Order: sequence, then C-alpha cells, then structure tokens
Amino acid sequence: MINKLTVKIQKTHAPIVVGLDPMLDYIPEHIQKKAFQEKGETLEGAAEAIWQFNKEIVDYTWDLIPAVKPQIAMYEQFGIPGLAAFKKTVDYCHEKDLVVIGDVKRGDIGSTSAAYAAGHIGTVTVGSQAYHPFDEDFITVNPYLGTDGVKPFAEVCRKEQKGLFILVKTSNPSSGEFQDRLIDGRPLYEHVGEKVAQWSAECMGESYSYIGAVVGATYPEMGKVLRKIMPKSYILVPGYGAQGGKGADLVHFFNEDGLGAIVNSSRGIIAAYKQEAYAKFGPEHFGEASRAAVEDMRKDIDGALQSAL
Amino acid sequence: MINKLTVKIQKTHAPIVVGLDPMLDYIPEHIQKKAFQEKGETLEGAAEAIWQFNKEIVDYTWDLIPAVKPQIAMYEQFGIPGLAAFKKTVDYCHEKDLVVIGDVKRGDIGSTSAAYAAGHIGTVTVGSQAYHPFDEDFITVNPYLGTDGVKPFAEVCRKEQKGLFILVKTSNPSSGEFQDRLIDGRPLYEHVGEKVAQWSAECMGESYSYIGAVVGATYPEMGKVLRKIMPKSYILVPGYGAQGGKGADLVHFFNEDGLGAIVNSSRGIIAAYKQEAYAKFGPEHFGEASRAAVEDMRKDIDGALQSAL
Repeated sequence: MINKLTVKIQKTHAPIVVGLDPMLDYIPEHIQKKAFQEKGETLEGAAEAIWQFNKEIVDYTWDLIPAVKPQIAMYEQFGIPGLAAFKKTVDYCHEKDLVVIGDVKRGDIGSTSAAYAAGHIGTVTVGSQAYHPFDEDFITVNPYLGTDGVKPFAEVCRKEQKGLFILVKTSNPSSGEFQDRLIDGRPLYEHVGEKVAQWSAECMGESYSYIGAVVGATYPEMGKVLRKIMPKSYILVPGYGAQGGKGADLVHFFNEDGLGAIVNSSRGIIAAYKQEAYAKFGPEHFGEASRAAVEDMRKDIDGALQSAL
Repeated sequence: MINKLTVKIQKTHAPIVVGLDPMLDYIPEHIQKKAFQEKGETLEGAAEAIWQFNKEIVDYTWDLIPAVKPQIAMYEQFGIPGLAAFKKTVDYCHEKDLVVIGDVKRGDIGSTSAAYAAGHIGTVTVGSQAYHPFDEDFITVNPYLGTDGVKPFAEVCRKEQKGLFILVKTSNPSSGEFQDRLIDGRPLYEHVGEKVAQWSAECMGESYSYIGAVVGATYPEMGKVLRKIMPKSYILVPGYGAQGGKGADLVHFFNEDGLGAIVNSSRGIIAAYKQEAYAKFGPEHFGEASRAAVEDMRKDIDGALQSAL
C-alpha cells in the first residue's frame, strides 16, 4: 500500500491528504435539511448528512489527490449510524481508487491491539468465513504502550500489505507536555522516532516502509530532526492551514527525492466555502470550493518543494 | 458516577470489575452454533454470539459486582455489527444497575477528543434533538497528547457526572519502553501520574475524583508510588489473574480507607469454565463458572485487604 501511495503522489504531484472530519457545522444547511427530512433529526439523520457531504467533496477532489484521512471520532460521536457512515465513506473512496488513512489513533496491550488491527486493516474469521470489517489502507496508532502494543498492527500490515502512521510528535499546543520531555538528553519524541525507524526497517516496501509516523506541521524544526531519524518512514503531517502550518515550513518533512511526507488538511479543504478566499462559491457549491482549495494547497506545497529541491 | 461506584464497591465488598472482552474462542460452542444458525457465519452472527455470551455472564454476576469493563476492540473487530453488540451490552448492564467502564483508550487533539467524549460519555446534538450515543459511565483515555487532549474529556465529565481512567502505567510487558524512561530523575509514568492528580483535583466527587488512572497489577511497586502521587484518584488495575497479578500484590493500590482501587479481570472470569479450577461446570454452565470465579476473586482481594488494613 505504501508503494501505491508513493506512485499516486508522484502522479498527482500532490503530497496531500484530505481530512474527512465532518463536524455538523461544516455541513451546508441544504445538505443537513435534506438529510433530516429523510431520516429525522436523529443519529441516522446526522450520519446521512455526513455521508452526502463527504460524497460531494470526494466527487470534486478525487482526481487531484492520492489519499483521504477520515477522522473516526467525527463519525463515532454519532454512535452506530455515524460509524456506518465512516464505513460507507471508506468504501466510496476505494471505489474512487483513493488510499484511505483511517485516523483512529488506536493502541492497547498486545491481544487488544491485535483485535483493532484485525478490524481496521486486517481479517476476522467467523466460523469458516473471513471478513475485512472496516478495511482502511493505513491507520494511525498511539505508541504509549510500547513495542508489544504496536507489533500486532505491524504483523497485520506485513500480511495484508497495509500500513501505519505512528504518533511521534502531534500537532496540538500541549503535545510537548510529555513528548518534549528530555530522556538521556533527548526529547521523548526522538526516542519514539527511533523505535518507529526500527519497526519501519522490518516492514519495507519498494523504497519506503509500510510503517510511517505522524509529526505535526506546527513543529517544523522537530520535523527536520525526525526526518533524519526515520529516513524510510513516510511522515503524515497534520496541522497545515487551519492549525497554522504553511507550505514553506514543510519542505524539511520531505526527503531529497521529494517524497517521504504527505500533508493533511481537513477544515481548510472540506469547509473551504466558509473561508473568505472561497466564499464566492457559496454553500451550494461547497464541492467546487473544496476543489479550488486543494489546487491552492498543491501549488503552495509543490511550489515550496520545487524551490527547495 | 464516582460516588455511585464507591457506594457499590462498599455494598458488594468487591472492588472488582469484570472485563467483558469476548474473544470468539472464549465463547462456548453451543452459543456460537446457535448464533450462526440464526444469523449465519457473518459479522452479525459473531456479534450475536458475543451478545448472548455477555448476557449470560452478566445475568450470573451482576449482583456480586459493582462494574463491568467492555473492551471495545473486541467488538470493533467485528465492524458495525460488533459495535452494535457493544452498545447492547452497555445498555443491558445499565438495566442491571452496573457501572460501565468503556475501555476505549481514546485520545487525540482537542476538537477530536471532544467528539470522542461526546459520543462515549456525553451528548451530541442533531438539529433540535440531543442524544447519548454510547453512554458509558467511565472511559479510559490515552494521555500521550497532553493536557489539551485530555481536557475535553474532563469537561464532559463535569457536565455529565461521568468519569475517566487515564493510562499511567499499563500492564503489558513492554509498557516500560517509554513509560519507565527517566525524566529529571523520575519515570515518565510518575510525571503522567502528577498530571492526573492535577486534573483530578479539578473534578472532585464526594471523597474521590471523577478522574482516575490505569496502573497495571503486574507492577505493584509502581502502584505503591502512584497511589501516593494520586491520592484522590481511583486506580483501575488491569492484569489480575491471567496476566499474573495476585490479591496480595494489590493492597498497595488501595488507600487506608480500603477504597481507591478497582481490579479488573477479563479472561479469568469470562472464560473461567476453561480453567481447571472451574472445569466441573462445563461449557454449558459457563455463567455459573464465571460466578464462582468472581466469588473467588472477591475472597482473594477482600481477604488480602482485610489482613493488610
């Protein structure tokens, strides 16, 4: 799957992932209204609004981008119907040949991590039958429990040719509270990065590993260091746009081959129609606004990469 | 909810939580067979088997225990039908007046943690309607992202009188890989424990805080230290029984009032019928085996507490 992601990035010139994190208040009135008319002001109604919103954004952007990243929390908050909309979104993105990164941040003791891995990127067996319940291509994983919490995910990746992005340095303001604390003179995130590099080496694709890392766009200096610590790991970079990251800040997350990073934008793309720059499209044409925002993001990042390399 | 948990522990003399973590191979043949006959060898069939298994265990143990802890991964691995069985289990345990600890180990940046909190222990709004999608009483939370990843959960707890158990020192063999690393001369888990103590102080119930911690039974010496660092936090202690913890090891997880900890056993209770000690019940009477195992666990822990206090 890392090979497919790499090829798609090269083809689209867009090391971009669209974060499908649909808060209800991002969803235009007319979509919400129609969904509530059909399914009521219920969890099912909210799930229908999310699905219709996602579908239009995917329809307007799929040919420009290699990947999407649905944030499962935004679906899980609407219970079972919400999670059904998550699954429907994963399947629809696969129909459009997009790589799907499930942003699930799971992580537990060994046997439990194995269950998460089976459900999200692997296979479960029921009697004589096998199923791929959620069937994302990559998922994000929390490393706090150490190697035996991560290994079951890596094993499933090897078997199913799927991939991981492991949290190393997150984009949020208080990420430093634990992640930046010094251990033997170096911050915790570097120690986690080193472990990621070890795990990565055991799961190599053609030129990159199936095991990648999450490093926030909001910490470009740390990105520079972590790039060197994990040379074969793709870095998934959240925090572009709405959280403050800019294209020029991001060049050090990439390797000299122009690869090795993929930058996520959620709000900046999916709620583009709410920003001044794209307000002319209006809520009725939110899909076109998202397409324009993807094109601008590609120009910003590809432009910064071209002038840096 | 922490007040309810405390009262129930005092009433049952059982600082015990039954981990409802149903792997398919814990579920007796006759239950699986019946479920597959009704729903096929499908995700729905697996979910039905899990639900029937859980129901019988709850029916045989609810009057002896204060709380249950369903591990969501074991349900999530069977996709949407599995998660529907999770929800059905939560609701059924509430009918039996049990406190439900959702072992979900969620944790993300602020807005995303807020969505998880709303879905699991809070309220979501759809148009003019409000819903409590999963409606657990407590959930477990991963602290790797720091304060702004935890605060949204704590805010929902204050509003809804729900609670958290935050991972401090986990029970698995490689938990020390990051959690034990020394920062300013003290292990990371102590620093996390100090943060838990701060967060706890802002969310006090009658005698304990809504904000508790997870500390593995497999690390009793660390439990002793953490007990002092977080005096007002309940400690949820996994790792009893199958993972190796024993009653006598656990007394230091408790305060001098005999409260402040609740010990989880999963496999040891729900798959008791598979152990030599309870084999006489046979798979047909697995519920009775679980009841006997709960009684033995209560004797072990309450006995150790009585002789220590």
